Amino acid sequence: MSHFTITARDPDSRARAGVLQTAHGAVATPVFMPVGTRATVKSLSPHELRDHGASIILGNTYHLYLQPGHELIARHGGLHGFMSWDGPILTDSGGFQVFSLVYGGIADEVKGRRPAHPSRLSDMVTVTEEAVIFKSYLDGSRHVFTPERSIEVQHHLGADVIVCFDELPPFRAGYDYTAQSMARTHRWAERCLTAHQQRNRAALPNPDQLLFGIVHGGIFPDLRRASAEVISRMGFDGLCIGGSLGANKEQMYEVVDMTVPYLPDGMARHLLGVGDVDDLLEGVARGIDMFDCVSPTRLGRHGAALVRNRERNWRLNVTNASLRDDPGPLQAGCTCYTCRHFSRAYIHHLYRSKELLGIRLVSLHNVAFLLNLMADVRAALAAGRFGELYEEWLGKPLISVTR
Amino acid sequence: MSHFTITARDPDSRARAGVLQTAHGAVATPVFMPVGTRATVKSLSPHELRDHGASIILGNTYHLYLQPGHELIARHGGLHGFMSWDGPILTDSGGFQVFSLVYGGIADEVKGRRPAHPSRLSDMVTVTEEAVIFKSYLDGSRHVFTPERSIEVQHHLGADVIVCFDELPPFRAGYDYTAQSMARTHRWAERCLTAHQQRNRAALPNPDQLLFGIVHGGIFPDLRRASAEVISRMGFDGLCIGGSLGANKEQMYEVVDMTVPYLPDGMARHLLGVGDVDDLLEGVARGIDMFDCVSPTRLGRHGAALVRNRERNWRLNVTNASLRDDPGPLQAGCTCYTCRHFSRAYIHHLYRSKELLGIRLVSLHNVAFLLNLMADVRAALAAGRFGELYEEWLGKPLISVTR
Repeated sequence: MSHFTITARDPDSRARAGVLQTAHGAVATPVFMPVGTRATVKSLSPHELRDHGASIILGNTYHLYLQPGHELIARHGGLHGFMSWDGPILTDSGGFQVFSLVYGGIADEVKGRRPAHPSRLSDMVTVTEEAVIFKSYLDGSRHVFTPERSIEVQHHLGADVIVCFDELPPFRAGYDYTAQSMARTHRWAERCLTAHQQRNRAALPNPDQLLFGIVHGGIFPDLRRASAEVISRMGFDGLCIGGSLGANKEQMYEVVDMTVPYLPDGMARHLLGVGDVDDLLEGVARGIDMFDCVSPTRLGRHGAALVRNRERNWRLNVTNASLRDDPGPLQAGCTCYTCRHFSRAYIHHLYRSKELLGIRLVSLHNVAFLLNLMADVRAALAAGRFGELYEEWLGKPLISVTR
Repeated sequence: MSHFTITARDPDSRARAGVLQTAHGAVATPVFMPVGTRATVKSLSPHELRDHGASIILGNTYHLYLQPGHELIARHGGLHGFMSWDGPILTDSGGFQVFSLVYGGIADEVKGRRPAHPSRLSDMVTVTEEAVIFKSYLDGSRHVFTPERSIEVQHHLGADVIVCFDELPPFRAGYDYTAQSMARTHRWAERCLTAHQQRNRAALPNPDQLLFGIVHGGIFPDLRRASAEVISRMGFDGLCIGGSLGANKEQMYEVVDMTVPYLPDGMARHLLGVGDVDDLLEGVARGIDMFDCVSPTRLGRHGAALVRNRERNWRLNVTNASLRDDPGPLQAGCTCYTCRHFSRAYIHHLYRSKELLGIRLVSLHNVAFLLNLMADVRAALAAGRFGELYEEWLGKPLISVTR
């Protein structure tokens, strides 16, 4: 029942290349998946994504449950039919958003960069052993998510990979709460697995969904190890690393390093919500196979294009006056639609004029940039030169990575 | 020096099919041209437009002069190179916008549906025999347009068809002012022609631009006839019908009927700023060859899709709750990208979720809808069944049209 095959390994790190088999096709890993929160990768068409090399995309269960609703989506052929994307899809469990839209800026919050607001928290979301009760971010209406409910919703959405429902404690929750929360997430994982095994396959848009478990434990090595070992043994089709990933990138890499050694080699590993250029390369080096992040389209909406410039954090502000008369593409050598046809000057003009095409073109470029980076990573792994690629992008030798 | 060839005529009306030769290719007429005000047809890529049958698009001189500037565009290969559209382009003269952005809702104002505000007018724009002095809608900065300046700007933009600079008197200006304004527009037409003939072709991105004259005269038959006769004799490469077109559609058709008989048969005729379904068919029946309008993309931004439903003014509100679970396309039988791949339910969801892809998909459908209508019109004219097509769309016989 192995859905994941490893095809190449880097001798100097934990990096590996592989193939994940899903009901809608194979996914070559390491892979970056663009995020289509509301059944659309913001501003882009599914056919553009496919043409630029996207092999799997992510949808958000929480948002789709609230609008337009999972039952409506099931009636329209599941997410695949509804959004006209016939390739693989992964849905998260909704757990992240249930909490994140209370915490505020979720990534910063969960990653510990910003303090939590316990009073707002208790007003908006209540966690019990049985369920999470939360208010909709859309209209304040009250909803109850249980592990079984999350799986039911994901069954209706019909993604090829679905994920266990988890509680997301804030980074600053401390050891004791993180341990208790982890133990509950483990009990919820069992409930998700049972709900998934008992599904009525005939009634679902995609009867052959894979269920991924999710490893928690915050920033605490013994909890991460315990969670990795417990979740790995439960019989999931793959694994996610979730929960708090620390206060900064270094701590995130430490969390990955304290987790991966305790994950079985033969299961695909998804690091949830990560997609900066350096994080992708560091994650691959540490044995991660799958990544997702809203960053390429979010950056696009804010006028930041991804470019090969480490000193500037791989970002180019397209509204910068220096681009006003620049005839070159966003990134020299980039083969995306945007870079093949449009100059920096034109894109600068579109943003100055608040034209939607600007958001489209930069979002498409950014998505393609990360997809091309991951294609290069896979090619480098296959050719035994991942270390070279790592050093070329990050300006330091791969030996810095824990092995 | 004829750039326009008539290829078919309808025996029961003034409708004709033809071909306009331009430096970037031939345009089969009657034609609808999508409007790309700021060098972008809002939310759409130039390649989508081409793939959906657009043969010529329009850019607005006034907007492009202010941002990013015509000289910058000239440095980037003219509009063609700047926006990556290698087909024919028409630019207007800027006259319409110089006044319209003072009048407010331009179409309503010029067409007389809303009263003018003379005090605001005098603050924002001053007309002399020599020039129009106006304030930028962007930052209030002061600018001077002369006929020569408009042509110079259009030479830099490099469209295949450029248009004479005109004054645009409000509908309610009355006979005397309309007559005086027309006479001045005629003098400006001579100045435009001279400026065009004296251009330094070697310095321009597109040396082979056609210059169209513009017929004025408001709603007054003797003025329209006089203007048609004067402008027709000046030696332009084609003609536009501009100025006030009346207070409603019927008056607009009357204005066309009082003008077209005095235009030479062998010159292409463009009715400026018109693009409703009924107006296109009525215009063609009255001998118009070329149309442009922002309506398909403006409707798209407001969630209105064009459909074959005369009773509802050919519009479907995609935010209407009745579409929430509708699996059908926006328009059954439509071959556009949107209708081939996406349901009304999905598009409804995108608008409810304020997703940019919704605007894209409906704008593309709307543009394709009008392009397909005009392709049908051309095919009907070639096959001698324009009357049938007219009646099928408008539910009345073609004999109602003046011949």
